[in-house]
Amino acid sequence: MTTRVQRLGHRPRREAGSTAVPSGKAAYRKLINPLQPQRSFSDDQIATLHDTALRVLENLGMRVLNEEAFEYFRDAGAKVDSSTSTVFIDRGLVQKALASAPGSFALAGASSERDIQIGGSNTAFVCIGGPPNVMDIDRGRRAGTQEDMRSFFKLSQHFEVLHIQGVNVEPQDVPLELRHLVQTEGQLTLSDKPLFVYARGSDQVKDMFEMIRIARGLDNEGFRARPHCFTVINTNSPRQLDVPMCQGIIDFARAKQVTIITPFTLAGAMAPITIAGALALQHAEALAGITLSQIVNPGAPVVYGSFTSNVDMKSGSPAFGTPEFVRAAFGAGQLARHIGLPWRGSAATASNTPDAQSTYEYLNSAWGSVLGGVNMMLHAAGWLESGLSASLEKFILDVEMLQTIAEIFQTADLETDNLYEAIAEVEPGGHFFGAPYTMARYQTAFYQPLVSDWRNFGQWSEDGAKTATMRANTIWKKVVENFEAPPLQAGAEEALKDFVARRTREGGAFPV
Amino acid sequence: MTTRVQRLGHRPRREAGSTAVPSGKAAYRKLINPLQPQRSFSDDQIATLHDTALRVLENLGMRVLNEEAFEYFRDAGAKVDSSTSTVFIDRGLVQKALASAPGSFALAGASSERDIQIGGSNTAFVCIGGPPNVMDIDRGRRAGTQEDMRSFFKLSQHFEVLHIQGVNVEPQDVPLELRHLVQTEGQLTLSDKPLFVYARGSDQVKDMFEMIRIARGLDNEGFRARPHCFTVINTNSPRQLDVPMCQGIIDFARAKQVTIITPFTLAGAMAPITIAGALALQHAEALAGITLSQIVNPGAPVVYGSFTSNVDMKSGSPAFGTPEFVRAAFGAGQLARHIGLPWRGSAATASNTPDAQSTYEYLNSAWGSVLGGVNMMLHAAGWLESGLSASLEKFILDVEMLQTIAEIFQTADLETDNLYEAIAEVEPGGHFFGAPYTMARYQTAFYQPLVSDWRNFGQWSEDGAKTATMRANTIWKKVVENFEAPPLQAGAEEALKDFVARRTREGGAFPV
Repeated sequence: MTTRVQRLGHRPRREAGSTAVPSGKAAYRKLINPLQPQRSFSDDQIATLHDTALRVLENLGMRVLNEEAFEYFRDAGAKVDSSTSTVFIDRGLVQKALASAPGSFALAGASSERDIQIGGSNTAFVCIGGPPNVMDIDRGRRAGTQEDMRSFFKLSQHFEVLHIQGVNVEPQDVPLELRHLVQTEGQLTLSDKPLFVYARGSDQVKDMFEMIRIARGLDNEGFRARPHCFTVINTNSPRQLDVPMCQGIIDFARAKQVTIITPFTLAGAMAPITIAGALALQHAEALAGITLSQIVNPGAPVVYGSFTSNVDMKSGSPAFGTPEFVRAAFGAGQLARHIGLPWRGSAATASNTPDAQSTYEYLNSAWGSVLGGVNMMLHAAGWLESGLSASLEKFILDVEMLQTIAEIFQTADLETDNLYEAIAEVEPGGHFFGAPYTMARYQTAFYQPLVSDWRNFGQWSEDGAKTATMRANTIWKKVVENFEAPPLQAGAEEALKDFVARRTREGGAFPV
Repeated sequence: MTTRVQRLGHRPRREAGSTAVPSGKAAYRKLINPLQPQRSFSDDQIATLHDTALRVLENLGMRVLNEEAFEYFRDAGAKVDSSTSTVFIDRGLVQKALASAPGSFALAGASSERDIQIGGSNTAFVCIGGPPNVMDIDRGRRAGTQEDMRSFFKLSQHFEVLHIQGVNVEPQDVPLELRHLVQTEGQLTLSDKPLFVYARGSDQVKDMFEMIRIARGLDNEGFRARPHCFTVINTNSPRQLDVPMCQGIIDFARAKQVTIITPFTLAGAMAPITIAGALALQHAEALAGITLSQIVNPGAPVVYGSFTSNVDMKSGSPAFGTPEFVRAAFGAGQLARHIGLPWRGSAATASNTPDAQSTYEYLNSAWGSVLGGVNMMLHAAGWLESGLSASLEKFILDVEMLQTIAEIFQTADLETDNLYEAIAEVEPGGHFFGAPYTMARYQTAFYQPLVSDWRNFGQWSEDGAKTATMRANTIWKKVVENFEAPPLQAGAEEALKDFVARRTREGGAFPV
């Protein structure tokens, strides 16, 4: 591996002409969603869902398996039943939490141009997180490796339309107790975007927070002053918060870093079979997690997460991008706005290969999220096989769709001046190719696609009749091959390396 | 070919078990779009676009190449310039036309359950129309035949989510002067849905109107009392109405059948390079056609058509499903609502094969149309290669996406009663598979997909690792193979056959 100085000394390879893959427009860095949010429910129905969730928390309660979290709830005034580890959270406690949780906040990157506002009409797209496997059309499906992980970090860094890193594929060639170190080092050295940190136990979290401080040149105070990273807390639906998840809420709230509380409420499996029922349970569980975070540290940044979808009632398999998924997304967005918190959605598919199914399921989920007013759309690039695989080709296809959405958001250039004059330039039956109005605008008038091929059938056939997935294969390889990492602060890379080496010698930290 | 009586005497083959392909829910027959329409422009900007179009018609005018149409405009009070065949249409004439054109009307099928309301929040999906070529993954791309045409009629009849027939692929094995006869006979004998009639000259139109009267048992009066068919009128953008298109408007308006006035305004080619500029021209041309229809016969049903998209400025190739396409669709919907007419949009792609690109371009166009408040979405199933091919596999993939949209429209069953009780049925950490709330609903709770495969990677691989496009291939073949035509009125099939035989002997009618 070359050092940072050597890399910066070279002319960046991506300027070298034909090998370059456009990273997209600078305007993609801050996306404001101008679309009307869609609704699945009336205001009265939303009030009913909210009230149902409050009654569930008050009367049925949540099982809280982490002792510290259990005590936090009890000390804050919740009724508890120690014999069943159940916490009954009254609505006063929930309201207080909702009053202190920020409705909007900035997630900090390595420089201010990478800061991302979370909340309101701001929309952030986040790379895939979590799959054990990786796929590409050359090598098929296989266990993820550190090299694959680094490829996804590079891809996520390269494209402006991805705003926040995810941990993408699990590096199975790295021992369990060291993975958090290489995942965090990879994000911090290959990218200057805000990053993801797993909540798999306090020892790991402590390591990763320290690495962020090293990379970004922050002391404890400076780190706590702003959120730099986020984690996802999945409740064990129905109505259960397990040990590491509670610990994650506590660790992140104390450090004022971002938790996304995401119940995994698959309708018919871990939640009632109706969309309304699944959302009511989702809402109760999310409120429980949000309340814990605010009890621990009022004002800690917390995001309302949703992942409600349906399952195949014959096999129990989860389904994504379905009509139920889209309607649940609209409803989840309504519930998030009802409580005044940022909303996290997803773009997902159950397809086993990057084909037409993966595309329509993904794009329906993405439209559902965007039309629901999503603030953080997770798994926005590369997700396949219900999250069991990350696909390198699908990553590129997804970026094309994300860029299309980002362009739809850019409404500012809808010029309505001089239209009459523009039309008058051309006689009936003529064409506008050489008209002055055209010549003044043709270079930037339209979105230039990344993958789409608009050539005619003959030209396309002569060039090998490549499908979009085959073209995506060429594109991801070029990006990875020509990647130049953004510069780190002086000495940070060495310091990070030293830290990882020391913690490796010490045995790392196993997940809880 | 079996006779109608023989067919009806048999038990329909589609009930024969495993060979059956679900046609979708009866509720798909009447779709009401509950989504908030999206906007590309402010109300002021829409007023500007409308005013610009009126100024274009008043001051720049339209070239009208059909003498009868030219005289209609002159006699109605438009200023004309005979030397350039130009008609200057003042805004008073346009306003009068907009006042007489119906804002909503029913398009009649063979029975009342096939009637489709056009306008308001009603949404109708229309099969592909027009391509010379056909594609499937067994035989590749080839010239369309009568057999292919009949396959598409069967597919369009089979699926409830397609509301209106299109002429689909051009039957190139039928002589030009006879095609209109086989296209119309095919629609009338294989389908009971409202149909498409080409406006390629009065002689052809006369034949086809007569065939509809024969099939539906109508006299002249009965035929004119309701619209039974529609045609598409493309202006020759910019600002030109050619001979057959004008004649089509005249013939259809006189018979009170439906015209869709669709300017072919590709931004940067046949229209100004900005979306606003292209829409202003589209609006002017559509208003010209609408005005002609209302001059000929006030109250004739007419639809505001749009097909505005962009082109690749390097090659001039059209592009679809682009951000510009979506924003143009939102704007076109606004313009249609501004003048109070039903709006026709499209779902299109420039891809040369049914791959990820064809899927995301199609689905982005479809969402753009649906979110724009589309009333008739043309090319809703099977369109490929910028309209140069109809794909049998893509037809099935598109039906899956249309059914998903139709399900998203069905909001009535979002029950919000007894949610608390449903949640209380299951203990923390348990599951809902066997819960009473689940058992009461599991058979109908969720949309059952047509193509999507939700099995895990292992099961899917063992079953041949088929892509969605490969599965779609199996499905269209089953539908075509097991197709049962709906019954015609007694004697209608023979009478149609006699009519076609006679007109064939007489030499048919060539397109103009």
